[in-house]
Amino acid sequence: MPMDQINERIRLPRLRERLMSPEAAAALFKDGMTVGMSGFTRAGDCKAVPFALAERAAHEPLRITLMTGASLGNDIDKVLTEARVIARRIPFQSDPTLRRQINAGEVMFIDQHLSETVEQLRSGQIAPVDIAVVEATAITENGGIVPTTSVGNSASFAVLAKKIIVEINLTMPTGLEGLHDIYIPTYRPHRLPIPLISPDQRIGLPYIPVDPEKIVGIVITQKADSPSNVLPPDAETNAIAGHLNEFLAHEVKAGRLSPALQPLQAGIGTIANAVLHGMLDSPFQNLRMYSEVLQDSTIELIDAGRLSFASASSITLSKGLYERVLNNLEHYKSRLMLRPQEISNHPEVIRRLGLICINTALECDIYGNVNSTHVGGSHMMNGIGGSGDFARNAHLSVFVTKSIAKNGAISSIVPMVSHVDHTEHDTDIFVTEHGLADLRGLAPRERARQVIENCADPLYRDLLRDYFMRASRRGGHTPHLLEEAFAWHLRFNQEGSMLGKQPHAQAAAPALAEA
Amino acid sequence: MPMDQINERIRLPRLRERLMSPEAAAALFKDGMTVGMSGFTRAGDCKAVPFALAERAAHEPLRITLMTGASLGNDIDKVLTEARVIARRIPFQSDPTLRRQINAGEVMFIDQHLSETVEQLRSGQIAPVDIAVVEATAITENGGIVPTTSVGNSASFAVLAKKIIVEINLTMPTGLEGLHDIYIPTYRPHRLPIPLISPDQRIGLPYIPVDPEKIVGIVITQKADSPSNVLPPDAETNAIAGHLNEFLAHEVKAGRLSPALQPLQAGIGTIANAVLHGMLDSPFQNLRMYSEVLQDSTIELIDAGRLSFASASSITLSKGLYERVLNNLEHYKSRLMLRPQEISNHPEVIRRLGLICINTALECDIYGNVNSTHVGGSHMMNGIGGSGDFARNAHLSVFVTKSIAKNGAISSIVPMVSHVDHTEHDTDIFVTEHGLADLRGLAPRERARQVIENCADPLYRDLLRDYFMRASRRGGHTPHLLEEAFAWHLRFNQEGSMLGKQPHAQAAAPALAEA
Repeated sequence: MPMDQINERIRLPRLRERLMSPEAAAALFKDGMTVGMSGFTRAGDCKAVPFALAERAAHEPLRITLMTGASLGNDIDKVLTEARVIARRIPFQSDPTLRRQINAGEVMFIDQHLSETVEQLRSGQIAPVDIAVVEATAITENGGIVPTTSVGNSASFAVLAKKIIVEINLTMPTGLEGLHDIYIPTYRPHRLPIPLISPDQRIGLPYIPVDPEKIVGIVITQKADSPSNVLPPDAETNAIAGHLNEFLAHEVKAGRLSPALQPLQAGIGTIANAVLHGMLDSPFQNLRMYSEVLQDSTIELIDAGRLSFASASSITLSKGLYERVLNNLEHYKSRLMLRPQEISNHPEVIRRLGLICINTALECDIYGNVNSTHVGGSHMMNGIGGSGDFARNAHLSVFVTKSIAKNGAISSIVPMVSHVDHTEHDTDIFVTEHGLADLRGLAPRERARQVIENCADPLYRDLLRDYFMRASRRGGHTPHLLEEAFAWHLRFNQEGSMLGKQPHAQAAAPALAEA
Repeated sequence: MPMDQINERIRLPRLRERLMSPEAAAALFKDGMTVGMSGFTRAGDCKAVPFALAERAAHEPLRITLMTGASLGNDIDKVLTEARVIARRIPFQSDPTLRRQINAGEVMFIDQHLSETVEQLRSGQIAPVDIAVVEATAITENGGIVPTTSVGNSASFAVLAKKIIVEINLTMPTGLEGLHDIYIPTYRPHRLPIPLISPDQRIGLPYIPVDPEKIVGIVITQKADSPSNVLPPDAETNAIAGHLNEFLAHEVKAGRLSPALQPLQAGIGTIANAVLHGMLDSPFQNLRMYSEVLQDSTIELIDAGRLSFASASSITLSKGLYERVLNNLEHYKSRLMLRPQEISNHPEVIRRLGLICINTALECDIYGNVNSTHVGGSHMMNGIGGSGDFARNAHLSVFVTKSIAKNGAISSIVPMVSHVDHTEHDTDIFVTEHGLADLRGLAPRERARQVIENCADPLYRDLLRDYFMRASRRGGHTPHLLEEAFAWHLRFNQEGSMLGKQPHAQAAAPALAEA
């Protein structure tokens, strides 16, 4: 590769001697190590060393604890899982192969609030990082690492690790420098307030400050991030967006929100992306985001002049938008900022700013509890991610879901969720394509009526009313029939539908009995 | 009553004209109002107006939404419930009569994180306070209200309410002035960091600043706080304290904690109080507390020279200690500070200070989830209180419980908790009289082994091993058998014991089958 590119990307001359092949970098790892890799929702993952590690593991035992920001792209989790490199995985993943191994009990997965991993590392509560592997745009004159399309946990991994390997990605434009704001909380007992009081405020450095002597290897790569895999909006997600817009407009009218709303957070995935997309058709102006990941909808809102600034920890876009943003960085850079996920997701900042948080539920129950992670109560899907960081401290904690899945065989609204990630204390608003339940200030019995009548699919409403009515007669603040609480999940497992084998007859019966 | 006492207690002369009887004050309320009363864990509740309200309700319809700091003493919740004054109750209670009405669905109870109530009020998300009723030691020259033995939500109730009634309690020594630190967060979008960086730091005023014209009535009372009803330590709570001390000493030895530990929080109640009491026999020095309620153990630790400072939102003591503290205020005042519960329980401050939080579980499950509130999944006991504020943001989140209840008919360690208040993401350490489970950095399957082997009662270990083994074979990150997950709770309801009618035979059988 041309020397002028190397000199431009590695501005501290003596570090140029540490250029090495991915294989040479992989040889620095030892069996049993804890490794912290960059990467957050498919953005800014390191793209060479992981494959060389998998290669090495074909010939000798090499099992590691792998920490990242969040999910990785480029099939890295898949390849490392197949090579049996991953013994332990922290704090999030979304790969089908790895997921199978986690659910088989072969990989130990520690599913964490995304803001907490580096806090636990810093205070020595989990094993220290032996080697950090960080994708970079460049290394500065003083050895600082300029990240690429995500910050994730890279900053603290690099600061806390014994050794650092940097992957310089030549496909990442040098113009990315200046997009990042690296702030790391001071140590206890002298920790100071995080000074952030506005989403667009710069409180740190544009690079990760490290001792250059810890950089033991530099690898050059040229692979792009994996594009996002969100689906386009559809009739149901448009309906969800419509209900939420209507509600927010009502809050503005009531004087509880300004027309700029409060800074927005939206979770990763198709539904949350579609809901933000729906704000293109809203009356709101000068929106701001303080989120963990920016998806296509963020760029669309910026392009439409609706969104004035977006702060997050990563940018994960579909192929077309990815190219548009990277090719027009000067235009977008003044409207975007990437921070460590500890800061993008920090309870202190979220509560101070007063965010409107929109996250996706796997299932919700009639009393306001949300399952974001476990299919059928046992099987991990991806992980809690940042949803807990945001929902707990939000000004408004919104959960969105389609009311049914698998053509109606599954109701997303159930009597009792089979796994709890967010309790009723942390959820304010549920929205499905059928409507919106405003749970603020309501007791569980009042919540149940809202959720059943406004959010459940009509196919399941009578069954839910029946459960709630019979449970209420037995009494309790949060009335349940423990012997039936999971009957719907069991029926789905045994008969292929929560409605049972004769769905319509069964669904209608209890209502008639009560009528 | 003597005029010099009145002049000393009401230092703004024109307010002295607003002295009135409790009955006259009660006449200011209207049916359907929202009322914010002082009182937090039986301390600093208003002691005259509530009884006059109950009296009035005997003759005419008078139903209100009652908000407080936390639980009230002096049977106020009981009397108001019996008089049918309480239509809606926020955010915590611990009264048996009120609890019955809540569980019968007669009173709508909104069980909230204690830090969040006034945040929701401030942003207009719940109905505004019509009248605040606040117990006070004195009213200052500028009309500021000096609280008594708790701050709770009184400051924001008074600041946000349309009208204020002050109850001056002559049994509260005037020396209480200076004990309180009233800081109220600034309004969004210009909210600033809370400047607190140490438990003993003063960041606000020694009184609640209000417009004196809002004070529409002043009532004189002379009733004391209800004494705390915690039980003395016993063999099991001593064992719990011993296990926790041993663990903390190990953390100090490993260099993860200093011999002063981190600031401590301990939940209300017998077990948490006993655990703190147990620190009298520990090697730790210069301890500090940043908690929500100070119980007898705090005073004992101060007297023993182990605890240098304690910040909280209330002081709830047994009779003897209550008198000792009130009669020696100058001695204790330099070591104590009372803050609004929004600040004592604020996620921002808890995370910054890095607390060791000790809260009581009603039941725990093998994967690390905690039920703090609901008996049998449906029936409310007291409420989540501050446990969620603290557990989520703790440096170390400890939950303590005795391993069994009702002579072994109930196991506090169950396959799946029947209600989730704290998820596995928010719990680090479980302790029972049998031992301690350190869950940090462990996946659910690893957690299960720790919890079963270290914390469960031997009577239930084989049953738990059997459940875990059979669930694990079926697979999943968090293996469950949904058809059996609540079998223990149902067995208790039907047969009077989680072990069934022939406890020992049933408990032993599965283990033999697996052996």
